[in-house]
Amino acid sequence: MRLAELSARSGVSTATIKYYLREGLLPPGRRVTATQAEYDEAHLRRLRLVRALIQVGRIPVNSAREVLAALQDDDLDRNSRLGIATWALPHGPAPEQADPATDAARRTADALLDRLGWTYGGASGEKPTAPAYGMLVSAIAALSRLGYPCAVANLEPYARAVERIAVTDLDLVESYETPDEQVEAAVALTVLYEPVLLSLRRLAEAEESRRRFDGT
Amino acid sequence: MRLAELSARSGVSTATIKYYLREGLLPPGRRVTATQAEYDEAHLRRLRLVRALIQVGRIPVNSAREVLAALQDDDLDRNSRLGIATWALPHGPAPEQADPATDAARRTADALLDRLGWTYGGASGEKPTAPAYGMLVSAIAALSRLGYPCAVANLEPYARAVERIAVTDLDLVESYETPDEQVEAAVALTVLYEPVLLSLRRLAEAEESRRRFDGT
Repeated sequence: MRLAELSARSGVSTATIKYYLREGLLPPGRRVTATQAEYDEAHLRRLRLVRALIQVGRIPVNSAREVLAALQDDDLDRNSRLGIATWALPHGPAPEQADPATDAARRTADALLDRLGWTYGGASGEKPTAPAYGMLVSAIAALSRLGYPCAVANLEPYARAVERIAVTDLDLVESYETPDEQVEAAVALTVLYEPVLLSLRRLAEAEESRRRFDGT
Repeated sequence: MRLAELSARSGVSTATIKYYLREGLLPPGRRVTATQAEYDEAHLRRLRLVRALIQVGRIPVNSAREVLAALQDDDLDRNSRLGIATWALPHGPAPEQADPATDAARRTADALLDRLGWTYGGASGEKPTAPAYGMLVSAIAALSRLGYPCAVANLEPYARAVERIAVTDLDLVESYETPDEQVEAAVALTVLYEPVLLSLRRLAEAEESRRRFDGT
């Protein structure tokens, strides 16, 4: 297919596609004349992945290029490929380094992950390095600074609920066939389901409040 | 206590406290000299609430003033007070009005809430008006525009998980004694637990990915 059709089928503008080609995020098409190239279904799939990384995941272009390189590295297993893609996602501010609230929050996060038997997003026995670990530490520290102490017992119900959510997420990722599609789905669904989750929680809170307090 | 002590005990700067006083968000202290006023524990509690609304909830000053007025309205029940506070929280962009993806998303959201037996955050029988309903519709529409159709069956596991989370949230809100403290907790915990929830979900996804795909 020509550039115009690739644009129409992907919903990505021709200007944006040309930018991705220049940045090496999309392999060049097969040249048919001096000014025209031909693209195939593999381009369409890769374009969807690039869009998921950059437009949905808001991953910087340089990081997106690294994610795409990792995808083509046959030495990496599937867990690592998904991890490299989702770890490149923005994770909010890193926790402050030498602050008593942060130190306490780190101990709470570690005790929680120990109780859950989770491995910090790394392979078994690895040190805590997932970016989401830093995001969790920051969030716990913010709660305690504002006078809402947040112990392992407070956090565990949230963790148990997201364990079920993660099974749903990974089932959906596995329903895609190719590694490219699975990574695309992992990035897009991780990001796009966040507002779903937050809005449903607020509706659930409103419902629970109505059940408890309506007319009281 | 004097202004300096109110600032030290609340962790809010004197400049910010003076701003809240000028804006009528905090009632004036009892004047003791021409230049000094005396504040009490009620001021401290109210200051924590104002900070929760404005600094944590990022609620605009005008909306915060309405929330505080609603709190003092004895005709309102507890459900309405909590609702007014959490509905004032920012909810992301409202869905587009006349767009096929939005119309379809609205039907999906309605079918989901019907199946759950939720009432859109309103009193029984009310029309869908909670701001989080618009946020949910936008999120479903964004998924479908990017080629990730999202049916009631996809959404239900997320909704069931947040139902459990909402019970935990409201238990925590109810553990506070006064109406002011409960509203403060509802706003602060709704907002502050969002990064906790999102970071735990990413860690849970990484853990689930490791269990399924490590070494494959």
